[in-house]
Amino acid sequence: MASDKQDKQFVTEITPQSEDFSRWYIDVIKKAELMDYAPVRGCIVFRPDGYAIWEHIQQEMDRRFKETGHRNAYFPMLIPESFFQKEKEHIEGFNPELPFVTEAGGDILEERLAVRPTSETMFGHMYSKWIKSYRDLPVLINQWANVMRWEKRTMPFLRTSEFLWQEGHTAHEDEKDAREETMRMLELYRDFVEDFLALPVIMGQKTPSEKFAGAVDTFSIEAMMKDGKAVQAGTSHYMGTNFAKAFEIQYLNRDNELEFTHTTSWGTSTRLIGSLIMAHGDDRGLVIPPKVAPTQVILIPIGPPKMRDMVIERADALFAELKAAGIRVAMDDRADVRPGWKFNEYEMRGVPVRIEIGPRDIENGVCLLASRLGGDKLTVQLDNVVADVKQLLDDVQTGMFKRALEFRDEHFHAVDNLDQMRAQMEEKRGFFLAGWCGSEACEDTVRAETGATSRNIPFDPQERKNTCVACGEASKHTVVFAKAY
Amino acid sequence: MASDKQDKQFVTEITPQSEDFSRWYIDVIKKAELMDYAPVRGCIVFRPDGYAIWEHIQQEMDRRFKETGHRNAYFPMLIPESFFQKEKEHIEGFNPELPFVTEAGGDILEERLAVRPTSETMFGHMYSKWIKSYRDLPVLINQWANVMRWEKRTMPFLRTSEFLWQEGHTAHEDEKDAREETMRMLELYRDFVEDFLALPVIMGQKTPSEKFAGAVDTFSIEAMMKDGKAVQAGTSHYMGTNFAKAFEIQYLNRDNELEFTHTTSWGTSTRLIGSLIMAHGDDRGLVIPPKVAPTQVILIPIGPPKMRDMVIERADALFAELKAAGIRVAMDDRADVRPGWKFNEYEMRGVPVRIEIGPRDIENGVCLLASRLGGDKLTVQLDNVVADVKQLLDDVQTGMFKRALEFRDEHFHAVDNLDQMRAQMEEKRGFFLAGWCGSEACEDTVRAETGATSRNIPFDPQERKNTCVACGEASKHTVVFAKAY
Repeated sequence: MASDKQDKQFVTEITPQSEDFSRWYIDVIKKAELMDYAPVRGCIVFRPDGYAIWEHIQQEMDRRFKETGHRNAYFPMLIPESFFQKEKEHIEGFNPELPFVTEAGGDILEERLAVRPTSETMFGHMYSKWIKSYRDLPVLINQWANVMRWEKRTMPFLRTSEFLWQEGHTAHEDEKDAREETMRMLELYRDFVEDFLALPVIMGQKTPSEKFAGAVDTFSIEAMMKDGKAVQAGTSHYMGTNFAKAFEIQYLNRDNELEFTHTTSWGTSTRLIGSLIMAHGDDRGLVIPPKVAPTQVILIPIGPPKMRDMVIERADALFAELKAAGIRVAMDDRADVRPGWKFNEYEMRGVPVRIEIGPRDIENGVCLLASRLGGDKLTVQLDNVVADVKQLLDDVQTGMFKRALEFRDEHFHAVDNLDQMRAQMEEKRGFFLAGWCGSEACEDTVRAETGATSRNIPFDPQERKNTCVACGEASKHTVVFAKAY
Repeated sequence: MASDKQDKQFVTEITPQSEDFSRWYIDVIKKAELMDYAPVRGCIVFRPDGYAIWEHIQQEMDRRFKETGHRNAYFPMLIPESFFQKEKEHIEGFNPELPFVTEAGGDILEERLAVRPTSETMFGHMYSKWIKSYRDLPVLINQWANVMRWEKRTMPFLRTSEFLWQEGHTAHEDEKDAREETMRMLELYRDFVEDFLALPVIMGQKTPSEKFAGAVDTFSIEAMMKDGKAVQAGTSHYMGTNFAKAFEIQYLNRDNELEFTHTTSWGTSTRLIGSLIMAHGDDRGLVIPPKVAPTQVILIPIGPPKMRDMVIERADALFAELKAAGIRVAMDDRADVRPGWKFNEYEMRGVPVRIEIGPRDIENGVCLLASRLGGDKLTVQLDNVVADVKQLLDDVQTGMFKRALEFRDEHFHAVDNLDQMRAQMEEKRGFFLAGWCGSEACEDTVRAETGATSRNIPFDPQERKNTCVACGEASKHTVVFAKAY
């Protein structure tokens, strides 16, 4: 039958994950119209369904930032090149990735202006003007902005030349306050990502070789993708007085002495979109957590042409009821597209819940609910439908977290030495928990031998390892190693 | 007395409007910490209180965009120079203002990339890929973004090298649809600006010399500042098929024929912040409409030190009650700053409503409300305070619109010839309604003789003028002329 063929064709257009994970990813985000490639190197267009995910992320995260006393501001996108020179490690870390504006208004500029890769330097410059006394502290400012890093290898959402992010920059009286802020924001990220994106993460500290350029300490949350690779989903940095010294952010303390502030910064970006897709998606397409899904419920009226008007009328009322209850619902009542095709289409787009309603359902005062996670369809009473849909959305959200956590546990391996790690890596994807003596040479060895990098030193490892995975000496830390995006 | 001197000094730090309006403006936005100058030519930092106004504008406007069927997306900031060449008028209009990225990642780029001044070309390029059939139309996309125009003369918020804005870009089957969209968005802007910013505006069509580079027709809303000058507060453009032809945005119409789409674009920007400040502010400082005010209510506990704990305790409860009611309230309970100083401070910052509460008030179960618009303080019952505060906020909002409308009416002059216009311009600031024959030469004459430019051809002028203000021939249109920011 033509329609079966159409349905089948449709599904097979997406490369199976097991065949080629990267191709699966590109297939699905293009087909679901989350993004398109832009005519500028390494840049993408965030199409409405992709951008809507970001809007939901922004909205909730912004609420949490404000609840913890932060305010938003906006700083210039172009940063004089000389600003980068002021913090030695910072310039070394970012210089190779900077795009420069060199001409403007028909003139060659005297000083090149970098398109910001991050704004520590610009915030530092302004903070030095605004902060005079301990009474002005802490300063707790966040910015939602676009940034650019001219990356060699790019991957939509995960690593693009231009991306969207938020960057918090705070200044404090002393180390204790600044370190508390660093941890508060890391914990905020963890809670948000686990709660909203249904992504379990590992919190920990970056090793010195992986920390932010200019930071004293960097902390991260790391999430596991379905191919076993890691994505750094958020970072929080304690800068000490490094940027305060570079930009002369000094204040009169409570004893009337001039002192440098202690600063922090913390950020998450549109790579969160890529992370949730790679962590939750399957061979049928996207699976989007209800809390950030552009469309939470797709409503599909079913039935023969002669009953169409009656069904649509009831479906319209149902649509209005769900919408009024604050549910993001869409209806597909196209007459020239078969229900089976629609089912596949919205599964591919990752819509968490589907409602089917036909003449017999209406007669019986019910409709059918299908979860994107599969399982039997639920028959629910139309007069209790809002509560049942909300319940199912909750169940999908928690079910997704549970499924992702189980997947991570299955792909989390403790290893004692490189031979073991190499062998396991070939046969099992995932994260590797291993001892580390603390030397950069051993991190390099691990990378060279296995392709894995140190992700972080977890605060709360499942077990401790006493010897270094590379050199066999006594270990200083237990580290999570993994291949990473 | 020291405190009186302090109070007085404080107020006189702001240049009076009558003395130098531009200096008044800069004084007040810097003192109220809405902005600061950035270390990049023509750029500013939007400080938290300035940015918060923008956030409230965004939130409400975004709600209205979505209600009218639009969705957000995000397109790349860098645009290949060749894109600008495709629409002749467009490149002529924007080329002189473009900043160019010419180096990135350590290499000289083959093609210069412009930092977007507006995104018609990038949207055009992508729309040509996405739009295939009439079934894909209309496409209704908006973008919130930063843009750059390397301006010669800058003015914080009103004209800066980098600014924030929204730009809607839509594609339609035919002229009728596209023109309806153009008008729908102009009307949306009018309603938003009058309702939310309390700014009365004049809706009309731009003359050909003032229209957007590449548009068939441009429409605007124009607001009057306290110095009588105009600010273009929003524009909406019907592009015809100009951009569709330049970027080959074609679709198969209902008769299966290939056709060009008709496109529109429409935008408003952070210059709205500057507009509302210049239209509402007074010699005491900012006056911010309650609907966009970062702080709507400032709560100031008053009383002798020995009663302080008791007063603060009651004020805390009041604060919590107002906050729970969704009112943006702040409390200033600093013990080392006099109430009089605080009154001036928050008036200067434009907070619409002040609450004073002291020991005797608490005894009587009341507090005092003061409006930023002046008048007697209101004594209100504490057990009805939320309703009374909300009422006063509404009254301030409508009072501000009324005041601005009266000011505009007083400064709106119908004139018959240039002598009259010139004479009135010296003695009365404002907008001038005059006949215009339709020739660009006459617009040039008006500009050269009076400094005023044509703002728009109002849809609904207060009266019609039959002869051209410059040449005396029969007029084609009745035009609003004014000096403009």
